[in-house]
Amino acid sequence: MIEIGRGKRALPVYSFDNIAIVPSRRTRGIEEVNLAWRIDALTFDYPIIAAPMDSIMSPQTAIAVGKLGGLGVLNLEGLWTRYPDPEPVLSELAGITDQVAATKYMQRVYAEPVKAALIEQRLDEIRQSGVPVAGSLSPANCVEFGQVVEKAGVDFFVIRGSMVSAEHVSTVAEPLNLKEFIYNLDVPVLVGGCASYLSALHLMRTGAAGVLVGFGGGSTARAVGVLGIEVPMASALADVTDARREYLDESGGRYVQVIADGGLETSGDIAKAIAIGADAVMVGTPLARAFEAPGRGWHWGAEAWNPTLPRGERVHFEQIGSLEEVLLGPSATPDGTMNLVGALRKALAATGYSDIKEFQRVDVVVRQ
Amino acid sequence: MIEIGRGKRALPVYSFDNIAIVPSRRTRGIEEVNLAWRIDALTFDYPIIAAPMDSIMSPQTAIAVGKLGGLGVLNLEGLWTRYPDPEPVLSELAGITDQVAATKYMQRVYAEPVKAALIEQRLDEIRQSGVPVAGSLSPANCVEFGQVVEKAGVDFFVIRGSMVSAEHVSTVAEPLNLKEFIYNLDVPVLVGGCASYLSALHLMRTGAAGVLVGFGGGSTARAVGVLGIEVPMASALADVTDARREYLDESGGRYVQVIADGGLETSGDIAKAIAIGADAVMVGTPLARAFEAPGRGWHWGAEAWNPTLPRGERVHFEQIGSLEEVLLGPSATPDGTMNLVGALRKALAATGYSDIKEFQRVDVVVRQ
Amino acid sequence: MIEIGRGKRALPVYSFDNIAIVPSRRTRGIEEVNLAWRIDALTFDYPIIAAPMDSIMSPQTAIAVGKLGGLGVLNLEGLWTRYPDPEPVLSELAGITDQVAATKYMQRVYAEPVKAALIEQRLDEIRQSGVPVAGSLSPANCVEFGQVVEKAGVDFFVIRGSMVSAEHVSTVAEPLNLKEFIYNLDVPVLVGGCASYLSALHLMRTGAAGVLVGFGGGSTARAVGVLGIEVPMASALADVTDARREYLDESGGRYVQVIADGGLETSGDIAKAIAIGADAVMVGTPLARAFEAPGRGWHWGAEAWNPTLPRGERVHFEQIGSLEEVLLGPSATPDGTMNLVGALRKALAATGYSDIKEFQRVDVVVRQ
Amino acid sequence: MIEIGRGKRALPVYSFDNIAIVPSRRTRGIEEVNLAWRIDALTFDYPIIAAPMDSIMSPQTAIAVGKLGGLGVLNLEGLWTRYPDPEPVLSELAGITDQVAATKYMQRVYAEPVKAALIEQRLDEIRQSGVPVAGSLSPANCVEFGQVVEKAGVDFFVIRGSMVSAEHVSTVAEPLNLKEFIYNLDVPVLVGGCASYLSALHLMRTGAAGVLVGFGGGSTARAVGVLGIEVPMASALADVTDARREYLDESGGRYVQVIADGGLETSGDIAKAIAIGADAVMVGTPLARAFEAPGRGWHWGAEAWNPTLPRGERVHFEQIGSLEEVLLGPSATPDGTMNLVGALRKALAATGYSDIKEFQRVDVVVRQ
Repeated sequence: MIEIGRGKRALPVYSFDNIAIVPSRRTRGIEEVNLAWRIDALTFDYPIIAAPMDSIMSPQTAIAVGKLGGLGVLNLEGLWTRYPDPEPVLSELAGITDQVAATKYMQRVYAEPVKAALIEQRLDEIRQSGVPVAGSLSPANCVEFGQVVEKAGVDFFVIRGSMVSAEHVSTVAEPLNLKEFIYNLDVPVLVGGCASYLSALHLMRTGAAGVLVGFGGGSTARAVGVLGIEVPMASALADVTDARREYLDESGGRYVQVIADGGLETSGDIAKAIAIGADAVMVGTPLARAFEAPGRGWHWGAEAWNPTLPRGERVHFEQIGSLEEVLLGPSATPDGTMNLVGALRKALAATGYSDIKEFQRVDVVVRQ
Repeated sequence: MIEIGRGKRALPVYSFDNIAIVPSRRTRGIEEVNLAWRIDALTFDYPIIAAPMDSIMSPQTAIAVGKLGGLGVLNLEGLWTRYPDPEPVLSELAGITDQVAATKYMQRVYAEPVKAALIEQRLDEIRQSGVPVAGSLSPANCVEFGQVVEKAGVDFFVIRGSMVSAEHVSTVAEPLNLKEFIYNLDVPVLVGGCASYLSALHLMRTGAAGVLVGFGGGSTARAVGVLGIEVPMASALADVTDARREYLDESGGRYVQVIADGGLETSGDIAKAIAIGADAVMVGTPLARAFEAPGRGWHWGAEAWNPTLPRGERVHFEQIGSLEEVLLGPSATPDGTMNLVGALRKALAATGYSDIKEFQRVDVVVRQ
Repeated sequence: MIEIGRGKRALPVYSFDNIAIVPSRRTRGIEEVNLAWRIDALTFDYPIIAAPMDSIMSPQTAIAVGKLGGLGVLNLEGLWTRYPDPEPVLSELAGITDQVAATKYMQRVYAEPVKAALIEQRLDEIRQSGVPVAGSLSPANCVEFGQVVEKAGVDFFVIRGSMVSAEHVSTVAEPLNLKEFIYNLDVPVLVGGCASYLSALHLMRTGAAGVLVGFGGGSTARAVGVLGIEVPMASALADVTDARREYLDESGGRYVQVIADGGLETSGDIAKAIAIGADAVMVGTPLARAFEAPGRGWHWGAEAWNPTLPRGERVHFEQIGSLEEVLLGPSATPDGTMNLVGALRKALAATGYSDIKEFQRVDVVVRQ
Repeated sequence: MIEIGRGKRALPVYSFDNIAIVPSRRTRGIEEVNLAWRIDALTFDYPIIAAPMDSIMSPQTAIAVGKLGGLGVLNLEGLWTRYPDPEPVLSELAGITDQVAATKYMQRVYAEPVKAALIEQRLDEIRQSGVPVAGSLSPANCVEFGQVVEKAGVDFFVIRGSMVSAEHVSTVAEPLNLKEFIYNLDVPVLVGGCASYLSALHLMRTGAAGVLVGFGGGSTARAVGVLGIEVPMASALADVTDARREYLDESGGRYVQVIADGGLETSGDIAKAIAIGADAVMVGTPLARAFEAPGRGWHWGAEAWNPTLPRGERVHFEQIGSLEEVLLGPSATPDGTMNLVGALRKALAATGYSDIKEFQRVDVVVRQ
């Protein structure tokens, strides 16, 4: 504990920028590395999930990610379920360069209500393609649309908010009973974001298959400036992996997936997340750079269109390659933005590890 | 203690940039949050005080802040009590872009003496509006103008300087006896700036209702470059809240308000100040961004016009919204400069706290 | 150990930017300083090796460095052994300013196979000049070309990769048995990079005359962004010098040279490397600034042309003087880029040390 | 001690940027502050010495500083003792904007030998004005010109080099025996730079009246890039003040002045130097900003014209006021560059101290 002054103590925390992975005494050929990620009954080629953000996930890109061996999650309260055809909205938004004007435009277009029928239609579009179907809602919308989603059918259900707790207190609205809600669903649920040992442990006790660590939005979020709230990802992950260990013991063997969600910008960040103990990562920024990204180079999270208190902003990225190149390569740039999967495989090979679970034990150092 | 070298030790200190607030395992609906701030017989909607700086507080804006539920303090030794009509001065100053020229212009216009009659007139203007009346003087001017203020009548009196101690030593001028002065006033007094446990404890013993922590001026102050003096706000607050605890005990239950004053630039900073233990905050910079600000986008403190040793400078900010939007929203920018009150409410809700006093116990972390 | 969070600990590590050398109570005249570096049967005027990178080492510049008293190593799998005349390739590459285009161009030209005959021819060119002959291969090419090199004859053989371990695991390709390979060669071998106590100790046990510390490429490498892997040089060296001590004991007296390789940009960095315990340094960047550098001001390592996952990039430096001026002076710039040898001599003199081995004990400090 | 890695430990060190001064519970009127600096038989109005650098000290400016109550030291091996009229040289140098060209020009003009007759003439010019006479030589020139200086007569003699030890080892040149040399002079001697406890203690034992802490040159020096050598001023001073304490005891009461020399750029830095324990400061940069500075806004130290290994460079500063304004005010800029003496006085007053010796005990903090 650090003493900030006589009356307040604080824990030191670390971000990915502070840490680096250290090779062991062994190296491996990349052919020796297995990146497979298994959750519940499904197995994916690699532990990378595309985040439910309108700027990167449309039904089409969710399908594309699935066909490339990963998992794409559609935001079921985004533009695709508010508008029968959101493309004109996305196109107009991409043309607005002034940030305040863009925020106001988003506040306006996201005021359009979510439609149950569109939720069903979008999930159906994905299912037709044959890839695993996954959609997300925020806790506030689960009560209203949860059953719609269940009825439409998904392989994964994601409950995702900027800060999600197992104990939401409200006297005006009946809060979502996460435990009951998850129990009643017959599909695996990923829930978050959370960022501490205790809040993660409580989320694990709801029966979730995985917890999302981080406050979402990542490189587009500005919560620390607006709310003063922040838990750097490296420390948040290190805390939550310990909650996974604790819950494994108290539950007599239920292993809850720890998924880093937010602020993973490069393949190096992805490797660091797993090195600290994550089982998988949920990414936004890297996919916002793909040619196919619906955001047309702009990237934003739900924080960006809060009607009275936006806590995120659109960020612009250069579109550098196809979704396939971004995920599977080949890369022609050494900045960690392309060939995410190849880079992760090489990170394990170069440090002598052969699978994700083993790699969680690799040594890391803190750069001073 | 850190050893700088064999002959000198020093305490490590922390600024708001070093720290962040951490969510608890609970969240709340924003309707569950009560931001009310009670001091003496008065209660305000939220614990935000507008600082007595000419760039933000005129009689008109002090009234406006009061009508919006907060507390505006007029500088009783600023341009409004030196000039019957300071608007031409403010207008001319706003037109000077060269900083040295602006400093020289300020050194000249602030050389005009303060008039007792204008003090009475300005306080009267505010009182007519029906909002609580508050004015400030520096310690050096309390002897001459203290009685004028008392006679004119205020609800709050603020004694504010860049460094104010309970023990000012001087052989040429009779120094202000703070204890006697405060005892003789029949209104609550806020006094500061101070920045350490001991200096705050001594100020508390003068009978003040609150102490101002920080050296004022904040984002416009440059004392560290000129004098080498600085105590980052996070550590200063953490020390002073411990003095509040000590004084509470030694006084048998008198609770002195701790008010963070200086360098609070965003709603995130306001949340951090309270998270460390402040009861309220005194802000300048956020209000300098309001359309109504008398500084017309320029912002400065008293340090900026010292006749021989200026220790602050004018800073320019973009004017982004009305006073109401800055304080109460809605916001259309995610940088913590608008909807200060809504952001503070959300900070408590997101971390599971329901009032200011409780929120002083929230966990904070130190970013490495 | 630092606790990143409850579930992960990490060692703090330091880069050259963190540290500085401290004078002792003595000073010496520069004439009292002896920089001679002895390895195996050879003695060089100073402990500076030119790295086997195409941007700085051609047969001509390797000869030039040798004639100036140092050791130049030719990359035996670079452009000089892929093309009978690589000058047109180098010239065309220098003309490409777009980085992605340059990466793609390099991926293409380095796809041309290495030719055994050209290896022989290049080594012969160097040998004709009378200077010591040194060439390098990556571990993957040692099996195919090792015997060619041995037959052609070298005074030093360098096995250099971005991460080289004594235990490479592969089921598809027969990995290089370093111990056997080195045993069979009748010339001293330098092998690396490595960056930790244990990996260095294992490399020392292969019979190498020296280990390269660092992951090569240095200022052109971007492995931390792509793979998340990094060990800052100061800490890596401090660990490996301890492995040298351990191996000295376990081998009953075999002293393995520790050679800092990567990220040494100035004469100050060279001095720091030795101050921490290196016996010699392998440099790239400083020589890329010489008029004679084949890269024509551009500098890159093998990481830059990986066909699917480049982990380095071309960096441009101003060409500031002849190879002789860069190494031996005189200097007309105070940035540590010229008169590397004179600067190292002065560093020892100013701190009171007379030779490289002694200087390894000089005090260093960590800048906060 | 910090472990850089298994084989090397290092002390953490601090620069002025890391630290700040903290107010005590008392404040004082500025009229209560006495800045007088007494050394040997002389007393100055304030503890600020103008450094012997050609860019700031000519005979004329040395006289001007003396008349303003301070002490100016003339460099007796600079342009004024190499040329009967150096003004054309200074003028031409000021016109060269390319740094490499300027370095080469300086290497050439400083190759002109120092003349004994000019040393006598310059000292005589200063003496005629009635102010204290002080001149400096580097250790290497003391043997040749020491007696010239003694014969010409000075009130202070300064032996100043970038790193000066009491034990210079050389077999080719008879090194200066500092103890004997100082003993034979009948004027107080200031000697340095040094930067550690032990080297300072040895210098104190030579009989010097004061030691210069730091490696001179300050903001113009680049030794860390060229040599890797650096000791940040705050830690260097804190170590040397402890040597002062040790020597005070071992000598039975001889108090050797500790003078911070190098890198003091603002009045805040001057206050910090004394707060850590310095008795006085030697400054260059602040005076380079004066209209009268011979460097015409350019500033450089002796490191800048080393014939083969320059370790410093010319730096350009805006000329902002007269020497009198820079030293005594008034100031019209809040950056700590004007009214150095007024700022130092205010620093003591604001923190409750009344003289330099007391102020050495003020609390300092380390900013994280």
